[in-house]
Amino acid sequence: MKIAVLGTGRVGHTLAGKLVSLGHEVTMGSRVTGNPVGMEWADQAGGLAHSGSFAEAAAASELIVNATPGTVSLAALAEAGADNVDGKILVDVSNPLDSSHGFPPTLTVCNTDSIAETIQRTYPNARVVKALNTMTAPVMVDPGRLPGPHDLFMAGNDSAAKATVSGLLQEFGWALEHIRDLGPLDAARGMEMWLPLWLRIFMQQPQGKMFNIGIVSE
Amino acid sequence: MKIAVLGTGRVGHTLAGKLVSLGHEVTMGSRVTGNPVGMEWADQAGGLAHSGSFAEAAAASELIVNATPGTVSLAALAEAGADNVDGKILVDVSNPLDSSHGFPPTLTVCNTDSIAETIQRTYPNARVVKALNTMTAPVMVDPGRLPGPHDLFMAGNDSAAKATVSGLLQEFGWALEHIRDLGPLDAARGMEMWLPLWLRIFMQQPQGKMFNIGIVSE
Repeated sequence: MKIAVLGTGRVGHTLAGKLVSLGHEVTMGSRVTGNPVGMEWADQAGGLAHSGSFAEAAAASELIVNATPGTVSLAALAEAGADNVDGKILVDVSNPLDSSHGFPPTLTVCNTDSIAETIQRTYPNARVVKALNTMTAPVMVDPGRLPGPHDLFMAGNDSAAKATVSGLLQEFGWALEHIRDLGPLDAARGMEMWLPLWLRIFMQQPQGKMFNIGIVSE
Repeated sequence: MKIAVLGTGRVGHTLAGKLVSLGHEVTMGSRVTGNPVGMEWADQAGGLAHSGSFAEAAAASELIVNATPGTVSLAALAEAGADNVDGKILVDVSNPLDSSHGFPPTLTVCNTDSIAETIQRTYPNARVVKALNTMTAPVMVDPGRLPGPHDLFMAGNDSAAKATVSGLLQEFGWALEHIRDLGPLDAARGMEMWLPLWLRIFMQQPQGKMFNIGIVSE
């Protein structure tokens, strides 16, 4: 697939790199054409890797991954442009973390709304799927690095879009039984509100030890 | 220990019953003396089981378990009375779930505050420990019913109080390594904000199948 990864941070790099390694054609998008971080990534990641502005990345792609911080996601998508977003699957990996008041951060939206729903309302023709926001980047693309079964959550209003995203996640190494479809996009509220607990667990983990949660069921 | 369990619902019954079975002397508290639900429980649960008003239960006990719904917890504790709460360990099991707008519920407080912190501010001399609110009642008192390791979270500002609560939890069957102390009481925000995700997972579980989460770490 032709995929745009919006965002040049750790999440963007991790997802873009994995997608290229799987044979997808990826454009890493950032605010400006010629962003040195994006260009350097594209240079090093091989022939399937490109970089460009948010608009160039989205225009070149069938599927868009929002890997920008939740606080700037709407601005990034506005620069991508509604014409380049409409009708496309938009995988929202973002979290609405506000670190302006120190650590741990609070959320800029929660409880009765979510970043994912805000994006869906702003781009009603986008096929928004919330996924991957509940864990650290290296685990997203390499679930086997953790010992024992653990889970990934997904939410969205478009079943066909979720099936496509599930296929990509299975390419990443996720077993279908651990891709937990939580239903419509408003389930993204819970997925984003998980972050405050994630952060507290993270603070108690031995340094550098990555983790995720697994559902243990009768 | 002499323990008050405030609340006569499913959580209150489950915790009170387990505590009595472990040899603790338990008073189930409710809004009125002579509440038939509390009296019936005390009748059936044996000589260590009593019932009374919130104030009677709290006055008779060294440790108080708040098993009332989060939306009425402050009212219940007001009826218990500051004199009966001050200086005591107060295990807050509540969740601030507002079901008045349908299912799934939203939270009445979150993000920059929590029910647990509200209780602590209202009763600054209580030794508030948030625990057990992240799972369904039968799992709280019988962790072994789920196959495989899973985790329980705890938060509070008083280390000695947390150690006492940890001891009770170990009596319930929790292994020390799965009692995750997340630090000061403001970590209760994350523990309470977990509920929206818990509810979505619950909605996707096969009916009647209880679950919890386990931390899977490198």
